[in-house]
Amino acid sequence: MKVNLIIKNAFVMTMEGTGVGMIEDGAIAVKGNTIAGVGRTDEIVQQFSAEEIIDAQNKLIMPGLIDAHIHTGLGILRGVSQDIGNWMQEGLWPFMKHVTAEDHVNGSMMNIVEGIKAGTTTFCDYDSHMNEIVNNYVKVGARARIAELVNEIPHDIGDIPVGELYPFHANIGERKLQNNIKLLEEWHEKEAGRITCMLGPHGPDMMSVELLKEMKALAEKYDTKLHMHVAQGDREIDQMIKRYGKRSIAFLEEIGYLNGRLLAVHLTEATKVETESVAKSGAAMINCSGSIGIIDGIVPPIQEFIEAGGTAALGSDQAPGNNCNNMFNEMKFVSILNKVKRQDPAVFPAHLALRLATIESAKAIGLDHEVGSLKTGKKADLLLVNLQEPSLSPVITEPIRNIVPNLVYSAKGNEVESVMIDGRFIMKNREITTVDEKEIIKTAQISANEISRKAKEDNHKSKSPLLQRMKNEEL
Amino acid sequence: MKVNLIIKNAFVMTMEGTGVGMIEDGAIAVKGNTIAGVGRTDEIVQQFSAEEIIDAQNKLIMPGLIDAHIHTGLGILRGVSQDIGNWMQEGLWPFMKHVTAEDHVNGSMMNIVEGIKAGTTTFCDYDSHMNEIVNNYVKVGARARIAELVNEIPHDIGDIPVGELYPFHANIGERKLQNNIKLLEEWHEKEAGRITCMLGPHGPDMMSVELLKEMKALAEKYDTKLHMHVAQGDREIDQMIKRYGKRSIAFLEEIGYLNGRLLAVHLTEATKVETESVAKSGAAMINCSGSIGIIDGIVPPIQEFIEAGGTAALGSDQAPGNNCNNMFNEMKFVSILNKVKRQDPAVFPAHLALRLATIESAKAIGLDHEVGSLKTGKKADLLLVNLQEPSLSPVITEPIRNIVPNLVYSAKGNEVESVMIDGRFIMKNREITTVDEKEIIKTAQISANEISRKAKEDNHKSKSPLLQRMKNEEL
Repeated sequence: MKVNLIIKNAFVMTMEGTGVGMIEDGAIAVKGNTIAGVGRTDEIVQQFSAEEIIDAQNKLIMPGLIDAHIHTGLGILRGVSQDIGNWMQEGLWPFMKHVTAEDHVNGSMMNIVEGIKAGTTTFCDYDSHMNEIVNNYVKVGARARIAELVNEIPHDIGDIPVGELYPFHANIGERKLQNNIKLLEEWHEKEAGRITCMLGPHGPDMMSVELLKEMKALAEKYDTKLHMHVAQGDREIDQMIKRYGKRSIAFLEEIGYLNGRLLAVHLTEATKVETESVAKSGAAMINCSGSIGIIDGIVPPIQEFIEAGGTAALGSDQAPGNNCNNMFNEMKFVSILNKVKRQDPAVFPAHLALRLATIESAKAIGLDHEVGSLKTGKKADLLLVNLQEPSLSPVITEPIRNIVPNLVYSAKGNEVESVMIDGRFIMKNREITTVDEKEIIKTAQISANEISRKAKEDNHKSKSPLLQRMKNEEL
Repeated sequence: MKVNLIIKNAFVMTMEGTGVGMIEDGAIAVKGNTIAGVGRTDEIVQQFSAEEIIDAQNKLIMPGLIDAHIHTGLGILRGVSQDIGNWMQEGLWPFMKHVTAEDHVNGSMMNIVEGIKAGTTTFCDYDSHMNEIVNNYVKVGARARIAELVNEIPHDIGDIPVGELYPFHANIGERKLQNNIKLLEEWHEKEAGRITCMLGPHGPDMMSVELLKEMKALAEKYDTKLHMHVAQGDREIDQMIKRYGKRSIAFLEEIGYLNGRLLAVHLTEATKVETESVAKSGAAMINCSGSIGIIDGIVPPIQEFIEAGGTAALGSDQAPGNNCNNMFNEMKFVSILNKVKRQDPAVFPAHLALRLATIESAKAIGLDHEVGSLKTGKKADLLLVNLQEPSLSPVITEPIRNIVPNLVYSAKGNEVESVMIDGRFIMKNREITTVDEKEIIKTAQISANEISRKAKEDNHKSKSPLLQRMKNEEL
């Protein structure tokens, strides 16, 4: 069979089966945007002939990574909100209120490039202005599973005193919902299926029951998922108890949200019983170790969720509180933080972290028929990783193989040499091929300068502890 | 004044004062191996004329990072021992017993290159075969503060059943001690002072009281420090109680080890009272978050040590259990793990992590008169960091600056563009200038293949859970 490309003589980590499905001296054949074959090099070169053959000796071919929860627009505010007690109101909002749609789009583009350079091929982007951000994914050529962030809260949420009930404005919710519907109508399964859309309720505390129910019905109508923050902080639980007299999970169960359509993001504050009830409902959990570690000092209950039989995935969340959008970072953190939580180094082995950034994540977000593993018929989303970078050297193959632990515990993302998405090299030898990286950085910087100028006055009025850190020369 | 080099128009993070000592639009002048001046660009260009001027717009100049505890020789076994309960005996030893001196030196060279590519300029190397490893530092041109690992335990320690008292062989201790003395005699303050030496007792459980006392006397004679694992695991405490009827810290206090000469590494098992007693004694603590998180699932008590007034530093430890030797990794981990330990996001702010990898570390290891901050008269050990990498973009300077949190929470090490050690660029635009990186990786791989071959039979006899993981296709 004639194909476009064969990559051969590599380690191929398929992520098929229950482990990592490693093939030594493996190869992959790509035709159009699809994997035509995966196997041992001798098998593949016999079975296929190709226009182009890449010899990938000392390299690893693996599935592209899936970032199951990212707010790319917030890339524009990387690093403005850490090391403080109230991340959202004291750190983020004084800047956030001055961010325009254009700033959001510019930050998003930079964030997407950051992700690709660290091997992310599928972005579950969950943000405002998604009808504009989506064009970034078209330009870059990345796979995106996107949702518009819908809530009923006015833009000046940061000015509401901590602990006071958020006001809901039905007209705000309606406007945002219409944006989410527009996204679904115009973009779902477009760009040869590279773009798919979900519903994006912001959280059970951020909108009325009526709007939550309406979005649930829409998810059924469009046969897609609901991407939502759930039990994401004591702030949310406090709002739920004040408003409804019950905690988030019980409330969601009551309104029929706990089922296979739900991507429950964070579960930071979920008890063991609540975690198990979400897992057993068929809803997936998305775990953001880096972000929740930094902004809350908490290890979310992903280990418990998996033990209860749930399907889980990893996400990098937002740049003003992680501060990177790099799935290698997430894999290392989720493993070590759970070892530490249980005081047991055997907990959360490396292959599990890898599965949660590939095949398990694909299952969680409902794209496992297309991506998450290297298998004939799936989309050609794959990484070429240079095993001769010092951080991945030497390669040991017997009596045990060291590639998997080194990928999770040592790699930083820059070992990813080339990135293919939908059969096309989006990065080759560390160069992004579809957009101008330098120009993207410059454009984001111009946006940031303008936000910074506007935030300066507001920030000086605020009592953010970060202003004191600035005076102390700690920043 | 005429100097060799001026680097100007940069952000300069001096690490002077109690914070990070940031100078916007800063510059640095370098003469020979020494910093001739640091300040605002306009001041520096007025005060100095230079043979070479580098325009470092959009870059950060910061002190080189100090890895205060690293076993570079173990680089050769990166990734052979993770996700198991007994890291040392079940994972490391089946390989370790087949590692020759040459393998050690080859692994060390690869590890040093890895460190430099992530901004490490000073290596506190603590390993066997240091009289040979030292030549790597000479060739590369890095700063090294080295100690020979001294113990009285035969090479087949891995075959001693867990929980059984280690046998001490005085002749083994004597031979290793002589190697440490040879190192001090031949290398201390050599290479224009770039190489300095310490005493390296392996741990209070690894040798007799007599040898420990002899090494303490030698530290006084040579006026240097004792680099030693202390309370590094339940295994050590078990040995101490069985042999002496007391825990490590009480024992060390009794034999006069708790004072300013001691670098106490790990303190994994130290209680709060023990931690405070070490801190108050003037001994320094070296904390290895990545390594201890992976091999023990524990967060060492560095926060408590600092609160008790102690001087602390960070180390990357060994590649078969971290698995990287990258101080950016250590900075992020120490901060997040301590936030999680206290469930408080305000704990361990970014600037503290940076100080512990620079100026505080220099104090801990006794090199703060030479390195750890950018100050006139200190050695020119510095990094040029590219702030236009996506992971460090955009740069915000008001009302607060985002560079420090992004360095600690987002940077991965590959943002370091150039590395100067002792006034010489050892890496320029990501290329190591003094040695052939590709050749080093190849040489390490050949060593690893040979170890792997020899270990195969032993490993198959062992009951290491890693063999089962290999069968399960998890590796």
